[in-house]
Amino acid sequence: MSPPLAVIFGAGPGTGAAIARALAPTHALVLLSRSLPGSLAKLELKVPDDRVLAATFDAKNSAASFKSALEQARAKWPESTVDVGVCNASVGFAPGPFLERSTDDLRGNLEACAQAWDFSQAVIPAMLPAGGTLIFTGATMAVRGGANFSAMAPGAFARRALAQSLAREFGPQGIHVCHVVVDGLIDTARVKGIMGDKAATVEEGTRLEPDGIAQVYVDIVNQPRSTWTQELDVRPMKEKW
Amino acid sequence: MSPPLAVIFGAGPGTGAAIARALAPTHALVLLSRSLPGSLAKLELKVPDDRVLAATFDAKNSAASFKSALEQARAKWPESTVDVGVCNASVGFAPGPFLERSTDDLRGNLEACAQAWDFSQAVIPAMLPAGGTLIFTGATMAVRGGANFSAMAPGAFARRALAQSLAREFGPQGIHVCHVVVDGLIDTARVKGIMGDKAATVEEGTRLEPDGIAQVYVDIVNQPRSTWTQELDVRPMKEKW
Amino acid sequence: MSPPLAVIFGAGPGTGAAIARALAPTHALVLLSRSLPGSLAKLELKVPDDRVLAATFDAKNSAASFKSALEQARAKWPESTVDVGVCNASVGFAPGPFLERSTDDLRGNLEACAQAWDFSQAVIPAMLPAGGTLIFTGATMAVRGGANFSAMAPGAFARRALAQSLAREFGPQGIHVCHVVVDGLIDTARVKGIMGDKAATVEEGTRLEPDGIAQVYVDIVNQPRSTWTQELDVRPMKEKW
Amino acid sequence: MSPPLAVIFGAGPGTGAAIARALAPTHALVLLSRSLPGSLAKLELKVPDDRVLAATFDAKNSAASFKSALEQARAKWPESTVDVGVCNASVGFAPGPFLERSTDDLRGNLEACAQAWDFSQAVIPAMLPAGGTLIFTGATMAVRGGANFSAMAPGAFARRALAQSLAREFGPQGIHVCHVVVDGLIDTARVKGIMGDKAATVEEGTRLEPDGIAQVYVDIVNQPRSTWTQELDVRPMKEKW
Repeated sequence: MSPPLAVIFGAGPGTGAAIARALAPTHALVLLSRSLPGSLAKLELKVPDDRVLAATFDAKNSAASFKSALEQARAKWPESTVDVGVCNASVGFAPGPFLERSTDDLRGNLEACAQAWDFSQAVIPAMLPAGGTLIFTGATMAVRGGANFSAMAPGAFARRALAQSLAREFGPQGIHVCHVVVDGLIDTARVKGIMGDKAATVEEGTRLEPDGIAQVYVDIVNQPRSTWTQELDVRPMKEKW
Repeated sequence: MSPPLAVIFGAGPGTGAAIARALAPTHALVLLSRSLPGSLAKLELKVPDDRVLAATFDAKNSAASFKSALEQARAKWPESTVDVGVCNASVGFAPGPFLERSTDDLRGNLEACAQAWDFSQAVIPAMLPAGGTLIFTGATMAVRGGANFSAMAPGAFARRALAQSLAREFGPQGIHVCHVVVDGLIDTARVKGIMGDKAATVEEGTRLEPDGIAQVYVDIVNQPRSTWTQELDVRPMKEKW
Repeated sequence: MSPPLAVIFGAGPGTGAAIARALAPTHALVLLSRSLPGSLAKLELKVPDDRVLAATFDAKNSAASFKSALEQARAKWPESTVDVGVCNASVGFAPGPFLERSTDDLRGNLEACAQAWDFSQAVIPAMLPAGGTLIFTGATMAVRGGANFSAMAPGAFARRALAQSLAREFGPQGIHVCHVVVDGLIDTARVKGIMGDKAATVEEGTRLEPDGIAQVYVDIVNQPRSTWTQELDVRPMKEKW
Repeated sequence: MSPPLAVIFGAGPGTGAAIARALAPTHALVLLSRSLPGSLAKLELKVPDDRVLAATFDAKNSAASFKSALEQARAKWPESTVDVGVCNASVGFAPGPFLERSTDDLRGNLEACAQAWDFSQAVIPAMLPAGGTLIFTGATMAVRGGANFSAMAPGAFARRALAQSLAREFGPQGIHVCHVVVDGLIDTARVKGIMGDKAATVEEGTRLEPDGIAQVYVDIVNQPRSTWTQELDVRPMKEKW
């Protein structure tokens, strides 16, 4: 048994876990995040142990983290190839006035692009023999530089530039690269806390649902070579755009 | 039994028929094109008669054609509501130098926008009570005005403008409007003829497949209210973009 | 004496007149609008009679109006060639809900593209021998289809598509085509009336000034063949974008 | 005598020098580049010594370089304020396959954004009291991620994101921020060398001219608060786009 592998970088409890759950029926999962593998149980994946591998991502050793995770995956599933890569870790949300932000804030966010680069350097060679799909999770600030986003938007734009360049370079070689602009708040426990939600559920169509986003990623993975989407937006019904 | 209705304007033998086939398992079909209903058999839908209604679209009486088709649909499925509208008829392909084209050529292509308008005027009120999905088939010339496309691109841009305006006006009211840029040649009998294909099949990833496009439309129809895409591109793996 | 000609379609008392005044030092003016030549005095051009020709534009005979104006110009300045064309007449502002607008409203606005087409058919052949500049005045609704703009945005998008196609077709032949998105309210007598301005002047940077726009057009006309801009936006300092 | 200051970062012998020459009649010049002040003579500015200050930019101490230059300027022209900033230093041109590029290549190019950040941190506070203009020189790779541009486009996109964010944050405060996409080869000595030009001049309209670009910058600086352009492209007449 050699299931195709899906490598997910940024496997947190919200969208990352939803993407993992959505790919689990068809793929063995290689998950990376800062707190994994300790917190794997928290993701509630309901996936048997022989179908999941959790590795810790060390931001100080980005390239080595990806290399190590892929080596562990090869050891665990020697016959498998990488079919899907999801670069779900992106720029953290911390807007603020330009003159109250430092070059280090900017550099920290540009680093999200360097990590996406290292991730791509690891998974693309593993995908080249049989083809595959590489998805970047983006945000509105990847396409619009808003006031107070000066330290954040550059990193997000940079990741989109990387995705677009890779799409054009590796598309003809069989690797489908897609950048998804996630436009709006995602209805996760963390966002509920930040927004001070009183009710358990929010009004329909006002927030993105992790499972809805995950289904979009599955749709992208399933697109045949005749019909690829390289960039798309998703937003809740009532989001202004 | 009252199946939800999918109304497809531009139900020709290529993409239109593929979309119809893809929606048939879940929707009763109301099909409009210039040559229907006579040529319904040619679409090879393999759908029982009680699940399909074929109506002729008269370009001279655009609004009346849509009104009549919806009235026939209401008579055939009195309990059903319109769930999906597909505006698949677009600007015809006839590029050429500006100084060899006439105002009538331009107006004929702008008329594709007026037909999309009439179609939307017919299906949106039918969708408002329960929500629904309205998809416009676009093309690269809807987002890029190329040399020799002066008589064509304006109509295609205009249709995209209409789709975008409707998406913003009716999205919050539960109608998901999406414009799909179909970028590349579609592998239909007609295109095979134009391109003088010798072989029965083309190289993988060089042309769009009608069934691939149709699956994208099904994906859009299935998007929940938390996660809507309003604009996306599709192209074959080897298409330059 | 054979001054180069600037043909301005949409020579109203606001932006059109400002563009005419700005080009007057270097060009003889051929002006077209619905109410000209009767209202030429109102434009307060301060241009001698031998440097200006006012012609009436008849929307019912668009192509003939342009042809006639150019013939008059050739009779008045037999040695001159057309150096600048400004298509300043665009889609009128009348937003409203889609279901309260008719196909005729849409068609009326699409007609702005057909008029731009006829204008281009008239001036481009006159420009080809020596090169020249053709500028389209656009608006935000030429690049964004907003809610309640369904009857307007299609015409504005269509004009931009035309400008872009012409830029790509005739640029290499020496005709510089540029589409200017004018984003915001222009401080004209008409807008002052609509907005119910009490004071004679508005706060600095809240409205576009006709003379500011006109200077942008002069800048574009002056761009050498090494450095052309085909699309740009202008907006007041405090406009949100 | 207290001339307004123009601070130009990236004052090389091509476009940077042309911008300096174009601004010299109206502004005292503060120039920064890696090789200045030793090579100031090479710029052939023909500007008297009391109107120019040349400072060395140290990439290892980006923020300190800008701070020092502005302090020298204040010492030289104590009554002057900064009116113009030009961030002309951008991502260097070194395309190549993704798998032959390293994270360091990427990071080196992202650093162009960090330098633009430091430059903006230095000049914006100096501009806030009286307003001013901040122009970023960009390139096509700032808006399109091409194949083989994976290590370059992210830095260029990031700079555009920064410019756009600053435009939206500081525009209402009187600082006009504009990003210029320079699309095409610039006709400089360096490019002539790379392209192996035999003739002294190239065919008209095939390359950008430094003086043409510089005039665009002057036009932007001269735009009044009623009429600002925040993003524009320039290209030679025969450039494909």
